[in-house]
Amino acid sequence: MPGMAILCKPSVSVPEHIITMEETLAFAEKVHAGKPQLPLALRLIRNTGVRKRHIVQPIEETLRHPGLEERNRVYELESKKRCPAVIEDALANAGVTAADIDAIIYVSCTGFLMPSLTAWLINTMGFRPGTRQIPIAQLGCAAGGAAINRAHDFCQAYPDSNVLIVACEFCSLCYQPADDGVGSLLSDGLFGDAVGAAVVRGNGGSGMALERNTSYLIPHTEDWISYAVRSTGFHFLLDRRVPGTMEPLAPVLRELAADHGWDIGNLDFYIIHAGGPRILEDLSKFLGVDFSMFRHSWATLTEHGNVASVVVLDALRRLFEEDSTLPGAPGVIAGFGPGITAEIAVGSWTVDPQQRETESAAALTDRLERDFARASRRQKV
Amino acid sequence: MPGMAILCKPSVSVPEHIITMEETLAFAEKVHAGKPQLPLALRLIRNTGVRKRHIVQPIEETLRHPGLEERNRVYELESKKRCPAVIEDALANAGVTAADIDAIIYVSCTGFLMPSLTAWLINTMGFRPGTRQIPIAQLGCAAGGAAINRAHDFCQAYPDSNVLIVACEFCSLCYQPADDGVGSLLSDGLFGDAVGAAVVRGNGGSGMALERNTSYLIPHTEDWISYAVRSTGFHFLLDRRVPGTMEPLAPVLRELAADHGWDIGNLDFYIIHAGGPRILEDLSKFLGVDFSMFRHSWATLTEHGNVASVVVLDALRRLFEEDSTLPGAPGVIAGFGPGITAEIAVGSWTVDPQQRETESAAALTDRLERDFARASRRQKV
Repeated sequence: MPGMAILCKPSVSVPEHIITMEETLAFAEKVHAGKPQLPLALRLIRNTGVRKRHIVQPIEETLRHPGLEERNRVYELESKKRCPAVIEDALANAGVTAADIDAIIYVSCTGFLMPSLTAWLINTMGFRPGTRQIPIAQLGCAAGGAAINRAHDFCQAYPDSNVLIVACEFCSLCYQPADDGVGSLLSDGLFGDAVGAAVVRGNGGSGMALERNTSYLIPHTEDWISYAVRSTGFHFLLDRRVPGTMEPLAPVLRELAADHGWDIGNLDFYIIHAGGPRILEDLSKFLGVDFSMFRHSWATLTEHGNVASVVVLDALRRLFEEDSTLPGAPGVIAGFGPGITAEIAVGSWTVDPQQRETESAAALTDRLERDFARASRRQKV
Repeated sequence: MPGMAILCKPSVSVPEHIITMEETLAFAEKVHAGKPQLPLALRLIRNTGVRKRHIVQPIEETLRHPGLEERNRVYELESKKRCPAVIEDALANAGVTAADIDAIIYVSCTGFLMPSLTAWLINTMGFRPGTRQIPIAQLGCAAGGAAINRAHDFCQAYPDSNVLIVACEFCSLCYQPADDGVGSLLSDGLFGDAVGAAVVRGNGGSGMALERNTSYLIPHTEDWISYAVRSTGFHFLLDRRVPGTMEPLAPVLRELAADHGWDIGNLDFYIIHAGGPRILEDLSKFLGVDFSMFRHSWATLTEHGNVASVVVLDALRRLFEEDSTLPGAPGVIAGFGPGITAEIAVGSWTVDPQQRETESAAALTDRLERDFARASRRQKV
């Protein structure tokens, strides 16, 4: 469909080093042994709901702080090691090659390279020298949603273009051993590492047709989520009021859907930044949506932790893999992060007619049966 | 004119602390006294052509390194102090208010805030909470051109929108006293501080109609301009080959103009990133353009130094102030920076019909006389 930006299936990878909630609790017992914050730390970790996380280095390495220079060197090595495979997968998912890409939006808030990794990616992966580079480091967890929305805008401007989104977050490289404020104790149990990529095709492809987007800054909350920049690197600061931000943000989601003629409480899919359990619980309540509709975000949170800008890509990947969404089904993607900024998109599930034609008879039967079952379920609601 | 993105008159301010070339030479004599690099340092400083620079702190403060945390604190204070007035001016130049702005592209590579200054600007200056925030920290000196091009793209996507560009560069806060490589010695005499802003209007306004843009990464030059990120902050690394990059980039400018039906050697204005004197000299040679056509870039370089992403806005401001450009006159803007990345735009000088109607008879006579004189000059060429 010309003139329609389609967000194709994301690819996501998580590193090989795993830390379970039990291990996180055990490390907290050691790190905070005999200190007054220990009971709070344990409670905060248990409340995250995060069963395991994946990190780029073994936990013993992660807990040491070798200095900003060394950490940023690890960031560079790990991003170069882990991004290409995810990007290749995302390109294949979209049925395009590197040479078809017109812009790369690279989002990452857990390391800082200048030039951004975009230059290295273009040089090593066959992207054209004319590829636009849009590196964004300062939107934090909202950057996944922002990348999707800016890719949508780019395809609006140049309808035949293709935009590659790359989100690369190694939150473990921002662990600060000396920080023991409430926000730090919480984030020590919450954040994980992951790399994600997805292509937005201006023309063709299967996935979510991006139809409308918006951004919203909750007034006067700019210091609720922030980095203190020190000689030891980025220090994550989190205000106690952040988990309560769904109350002011739910109406923004509702309004975007209404502007599009939709009821936010009655969409077919919800891809929500899983900042923490309360974000999902509150949003479920304020939007009047059953919590099960957030199952993809919840799965990401429990299996990978909060992987910052990668969360929405990972939740969307799970929606694709569930393979239960009907063509035309309406849905929403929402990223939240520092500002406090929300980046929200609404759109419809779309299947490329070409892709449908090549479907085997057996796959077609399978799909139609699933579609029918799902349509029946919806009628009952 | 609907559907045409107009880059309106930029506003630029430079700080009150001034350092002349003579003072830079004297400080170099002191700093490098008795060291082998002294003669080279003096030669490099003299060759910059930079007569004076403006910096946010007195030179004695600038030469001290109080640590990354303190430097970033100064960055935050100074950016909050200096950006609003420049933004107000840029809005007034464009005939719009903060509430009319749909997106803010904030570019800065000399300090790092999370959230970006965009959040504070929205909260304090009357921008709508729905304003898109596009902060870019990793395109360095190319970010001025990139901001113009992304603003153009945004107006292509949403023709009635207005985009505010803010470029905030305090290069003096990246001075690293212990660095004495050739690139550092050069940059110690080259870079200055400045803040610039400009509005791109999707509909109406006077200035440069943005008609076509491109980006280009010179293959395999990603480590020619880079930051080493250390506990002491960003360390600027500059390869000896950078001044020679106009040879591969001149054809890119030529091709963009040709794609637009224009001859790059025969445009009416050239707004070029004044990275250093050789950039301008070489580009003049390779494009076959008289050096005087780069007078605005040259004036910026000699009076302010290389002010990174602000250079193109400052040179464009000078073009507006010269007030000699005829409606319809074709021109080019080119920013260069790490990658090595070029961000280039071509477009035509445009005067808002509404603005013309409100022109007084005397101003009209003046302008027509100037237009006539200039048209005569062009015919002679």
